Amino acid sequence: MFKGHDMDANCVKLQSTWHAGIPVAAAMGVEVAGFADDELVVRAGLDPNINVHGTAFAGSLYSIAALAGWGLAWLKLRDAGFDGRIVLAEGHIQYLTAVAEDVVCRCRFDPELHGPKLAALARSSRTTLRLHCEIDAGGGPAVRFEGLYAIRKR
Amino acid sequence: MFKGHDMDANCVKLQSTWHAGIPVAAAMGVEVAGFADDELVVRAGLDPNINVHGTAFAGSLYSIAALAGWGLAWLKLRDAGFDGRIVLAEGHIQYLTAVAEDVVCRCRFDPELHGPKLAALARSSRTTLRLHCEIDAGGGPAVRFEGLYAIRKR
Repeated sequence: MFKGHDMDANCVKLQSTWHAGIPVAAAMGVEVAGFADDELVVRAGLDPNINVHGTAFAGSLYSIAALAGWGLAWLKLRDAGFDGRIVLAEGHIQYLTAVAEDVVCRCRFDPELHGPKLAALARSSRTTLRLHCEIDAGGGPAVRFEGLYAIRKR
Repeated sequence: MFKGHDMDANCVKLQSTWHAGIPVAAAMGVEVAGFADDELVVRAGLDPNINVHGTAFAGSLYSIAALAGWGLAWLKLRDAGFDGRIVLAEGHIQYLTAVAEDVVCRCRFDPELHGPKLAALARSSRTTLRLHCEIDAGGGPAVRFEGLYAIRKR
């Protein structure tokens, strides 16, 4: 999942959308590492995201998770044949332990939970997705993020 | 409060701490606009924080608020004569409306609520501060942030 040759055109397009449209995402060096089995993996190096303690900046960890959720919604929307505007309405994050390594963030689409919400766009112009992202560090969970994404069909 | 001549040495030191120790804060152009009457005002231009919709990136808005809370804790800690390590443990943010202008974030220290928590450092090595930040846009509230900061005395 981490290898370049597994990244499909949509993942490349997603990353270029971030880097072209969000200067902070480019500054953070956020990359789409892979998308398989309904799980999007996003990563960023520690160096551009360092803080005064020599670990990952809380704001960067949040931003990376927020982008992962947005990216997953964007990919699934395209997969489903919809074009929509995705906006983060609310975010909640818990920092369990400091991240002193490159950041790898995972966000999973749950077909049972999220599938019906996405399918709602067939008959409605709006829907929401409540997505969860996780960042591990030192072999254990380090960050838990929950984002509520509002989607409006175009 | 927005004028340079009102910024005291601690505010200058706070901003330079951010820019020197957090590359993302420098990339976002986060500035300490002022600190008076127990309220810290932090600002950042829209351009470096723009997103694909032409409004402020959700991750930037969170980061600016997280820094404002951290900065307020840092300033009050110094005011009280303590040296401490401040870490964000949990964050919650609501995006009420898009921000299509330069970002101005306010974070207020409530002496009644936060004073005793800070004073606890006189007899304990640890305390927490639950701080609230607000960003207005278009004349109304746009972002509400709540951060739980864990402080350990050095």
